[in-house]
Amino acid sequence: MIVLGIDPGTATTGYGVIEKSQSGVKFIEFGLIETAKVVESHRRLAFIHNDIVEKINSFKPDVMAIEKIFFATNAKTAISVGQAIGVMLLAAAHTGINVAEYAPGTIKKQVAGDGRADKKAMQKAVREILGGQVNDLITKKTHFDNAADALAVALCHVYYQPSS
Amino acid sequence: MIVLGIDPGTATTGYGVIEKSQSGVKFIEFGLIETAKVVESHRRLAFIHNDIVEKINSFKPDVMAIEKIFFATNAKTAISVGQAIGVMLLAAAHTGINVAEYAPGTIKKQVAGDGRADKKAMQKAVREILGGQVNDLITKKTHFDNAADALAVALCHVYYQPSS
Repeated sequence: MIVLGIDPGTATTGYGVIEKSQSGVKFIEFGLIETAKVVESHRRLAFIHNDIVEKINSFKPDVMAIEKIFFATNAKTAISVGQAIGVMLLAAAHTGINVAEYAPGTIKKQVAGDGRADKKAMQKAVREILGGQVNDLITKKTHFDNAADALAVALCHVYYQPSS
Repeated sequence: MIVLGIDPGTATTGYGVIEKSQSGVKFIEFGLIETAKVVESHRRLAFIHNDIVEKINSFKPDVMAIEKIFFATNAKTAISVGQAIGVMLLAAAHTGINVAEYAPGTIKKQVAGDGRADKKAMQKAVREILGGQVNDLITKKTHFDNAADALAVALCHVYYQPSS
């Protein structure tokens, strides 16, 4: 089972791809989808949607695991993040893959063993689980902070449904 | 110029189509896009997206005029409405039509002449402007309440850019 994890944001969305097989969990890729704030919102959303569709087409995940957001600084931010989430979920619908949404507490519990784990503890847990594979890539990429959350939600999906 | 007005909502989205020509403003259609809450969110979003794409293809609007939302009961509602808005804006991007977003106060000012007009005053203004054309349809359709807001944002676009 290949899982595409998504940590949605307004200007920056993290993504992470892992594969779960009988031999364990294998790290495949992580990165960011970044859009310029100056671009009109419908064009920015088209960029995000197309980028996710491309990632689905290249990594062929069985499922999109996405963090469920309940809080935001204000309604404006929440609506903006919601728009990005909307076109990502649509990418899943258009490509026919399943979607699983997980609350932050569930992701923390499944990955770090503590529903209240902080960012640092979460990154540590992700690195420990995915090991050398991900560490090699971290030295080349500087944005592990954001993408770690995406890998965490992908891992959450693997742990939450151990039978699949 | 044909304008597709959108009043975004979670379960119910109002739409209204008008045409502005040298002879004035002509009412074309109004209605609702309703989705069942039980459907998974990505499938619900695909339904909304496809429905808007279909309306764009049949009415061939030059622009999508959409109400800009700043407030929501809570972050959960805001994110949910944001998702619906996201896939509607994407429908505009995918079909290549322009998007214009208007704040509620601007719509009220342009249509009812008062930035603080209430729902009743707005519906009255929309009926007065679009006249018999819309009144004939109201007798057949029961959901004018929601669609009136969509017609209002379409009218706002016409008044806000009188030169186009």
